[in-house]
Amino acid sequence: MIKNGLVDDANQKTVEIILAGDPVLTDIKLAIEVIPEMSNETILHSGPPISWKEMCQAQKNAVIGGMLFEGLADSHEKAIKLVERGEVILSPCNEHATVGGMTGITTASMSVYVLKNLKYGNIAFCNHHEGWPIKALHWGNNDTDVITHLQWLDRVLTPVLRFAIKEMGGLNVKKIVSKALNMNDECHSRCTAATALFIAEIAPYLATSDLDRDSVKQSFEFLRRSEVFFLHIIMSAIKSIVEPAKGIEYSTIVTNQARNGVEFGIKVSSLGDEWFTGPASPIHGLYSPGYGSEDAGLDIGDSCVTELVGLGGFSIAASPSMALMKGETTEQALEQTKQMAKITFAKNPFFTIPYLNFEGAPLGIDIRKVIETGITPFIDTAIIHKNGGLIGSGIACAPLQCFEKAIQAFKKKYQQ
Amino acid sequence: MIKNGLVDDANQKTVEIILAGDPVLTDIKLAIEVIPEMSNETILHSGPPISWKEMCQAQKNAVIGGMLFEGLADSHEKAIKLVERGEVILSPCNEHATVGGMTGITTASMSVYVLKNLKYGNIAFCNHHEGWPIKALHWGNNDTDVITHLQWLDRVLTPVLRFAIKEMGGLNVKKIVSKALNMNDECHSRCTAATALFIAEIAPYLATSDLDRDSVKQSFEFLRRSEVFFLHIIMSAIKSIVEPAKGIEYSTIVTNQARNGVEFGIKVSSLGDEWFTGPASPIHGLYSPGYGSEDAGLDIGDSCVTELVGLGGFSIAASPSMALMKGETTEQALEQTKQMAKITFAKNPFFTIPYLNFEGAPLGIDIRKVIETGITPFIDTAIIHKNGGLIGSGIACAPLQCFEKAIQAFKKKYQQ
Repeated sequence: MIKNGLVDDANQKTVEIILAGDPVLTDIKLAIEVIPEMSNETILHSGPPISWKEMCQAQKNAVIGGMLFEGLADSHEKAIKLVERGEVILSPCNEHATVGGMTGITTASMSVYVLKNLKYGNIAFCNHHEGWPIKALHWGNNDTDVITHLQWLDRVLTPVLRFAIKEMGGLNVKKIVSKALNMNDECHSRCTAATALFIAEIAPYLATSDLDRDSVKQSFEFLRRSEVFFLHIIMSAIKSIVEPAKGIEYSTIVTNQARNGVEFGIKVSSLGDEWFTGPASPIHGLYSPGYGSEDAGLDIGDSCVTELVGLGGFSIAASPSMALMKGETTEQALEQTKQMAKITFAKNPFFTIPYLNFEGAPLGIDIRKVIETGITPFIDTAIIHKNGGLIGSGIACAPLQCFEKAIQAFKKKYQQ
Repeated sequence: MIKNGLVDDANQKTVEIILAGDPVLTDIKLAIEVIPEMSNETILHSGPPISWKEMCQAQKNAVIGGMLFEGLADSHEKAIKLVERGEVILSPCNEHATVGGMTGITTASMSVYVLKNLKYGNIAFCNHHEGWPIKALHWGNNDTDVITHLQWLDRVLTPVLRFAIKEMGGLNVKKIVSKALNMNDECHSRCTAATALFIAEIAPYLATSDLDRDSVKQSFEFLRRSEVFFLHIIMSAIKSIVEPAKGIEYSTIVTNQARNGVEFGIKVSSLGDEWFTGPASPIHGLYSPGYGSEDAGLDIGDSCVTELVGLGGFSIAASPSMALMKGETTEQALEQTKQMAKITFAKNPFFTIPYLNFEGAPLGIDIRKVIETGITPFIDTAIIHKNGGLIGSGIACAPLQCFEKAIQAFKKKYQQ
């Protein structure tokens, strides 16, 4: 039997560490400069570890795109050969204090956000969200346009945002998320308010900068059109506040949650570095005209790090517009958030849900409760075509298997 | 007896005109250049007509402030003498295609928004919201700081915003309101999202302008700090879409609604230029520390033009944060919006309420329904000190008397 008293104390400690987190966007640097154990030949990907052979096609496309972007290969064929010969290192973002959206491909010369958790001093990383284009590396595309846009992000957007962030002495991300969650964002699939608030924060600093003015203009135009842009800043912020909550003995709180389009994986605070996995789920939602479930890839990306602290699917009641986009009513969204409260240990007082009279969002997935109730985390997510490209938006349910494996490991560790 | 068939047809026509309105912020000009029947000695004020003697102290303070700002007098005493001698013209904003926030004082050399209703070609006006300071002309203050800030608005902010508005070829206000109402703004007392979206709209145009860069910076800093700023743009937009709905025979829809701190006045589409008035109401809400209801002035300002189309108190269910600021629960806010649906003729498909599954906001106050139900419009509003200064935020109920007078006039006109 699990000693619930010990576990509750451990879980309390775990969520207190998460709540004490103070994530500040301090800089934007090259991945190679800052990400631990990064190399020019390293291709980081979303989700738990996976081999090239097992990867879904969209993620494979993005690996190839990443290699083209880096100049590791000059054709798809050459890229594939290099990967097959093991001349590039495939590694999960999550093992490098990093999170990656959707396919999650992150390579050496990409710009990454440097998110510092001021409370604990640790740092986490995420590359830019590619914004409004429906073809993008994170969506599993690797066309020339995609590569050109990645280059634009680094060449034009990065210096502009970096200047603003440095000038303002770092951006308090928790404050923006807290505000945006009260503005119809669930801060995962919808970041409309967060992105607008971000623009308002950086605008004064950019007004008097010596930056190329056309770059500033292009950046503002891109941000205005890219309503989910702020998501990757949120993802790295949440990664930075969850990391210190690892390694708490007896804690049954989930501290990693990530999918690679084939498997959904979790880690648990007390259970070290082991991934517990289950099959990635299909996504239920609404499709762009001309597409249907037969076109869709399975659940993918590290963005479900947001659900670990109560955002996204856990706060869908805070975002009727997101619920609507997924074909749900407000009542269904409220019910969904209430379901998530059944599998979480606490409420997040910083992230509140207006239509529940500002009750805190469900915080801290407790593997005991998942097993007891049979309810698994709801993940808000984009839907990509199995061959790449954004085709819809929906909800995935995490597979029960990873929680079953985790609870077995927990019992084994603590009941010997 | 009122011929309900004729009235319903007329009301339908009235709301269709309102819904067809297409308000675009096209320019910012000096009041004297654009406001009809404006002169250097004209002081426009909020609410129905009122004499100097009858004015509340806060509005008197603002009249004096407006005269100091215009250089019509160089001291309070001289200003008062001039007014008492009838050497300035006091006139309601509403009689000049204009709306004024709170005290509503609008003078010749102030910058005003030029809001054009593209559908009908008419134009409406409103001066700048003075933003974050809790002492301001619209709050009924006239200190040197207040005058200096008014000068800053005209000298620094106006050229910056004017440039952006001209460059973008005019700003579609309905689109921003529509979006903001789904982002926890009720677009009267809370315009946090609308203001952030406005910043995002103007930022690209300001990036490459030849404007003084420090003016651009100061403007962004001011806007970021002034979350209700966009209200005055909304007010003039709504004024522009309601004006063409006047003069519809048999229509019982309210087309003006305004208060001067002494009286609450309405006009009705079919009843010409007559104001029907009742006593201005006390405001129920929450006060800044150190203040209470004994300090408060009565309901004041033309901002309740927003309630005519379903914003503000009519859409409080769209803004749990505003409800919270007024000491209400989400359930109370939902109930309040449902109450407003009982006295309105239609729903506004452009302005929707997320937590009612995007049902349209209650549109078109029908004086018949007000009389039948005894329910009067809820107005979201700021609370100012009786001697001037912002001290809280709350809800006022329009007095029944003005609706009783209007229905009598209606019966008299159409039953002879």
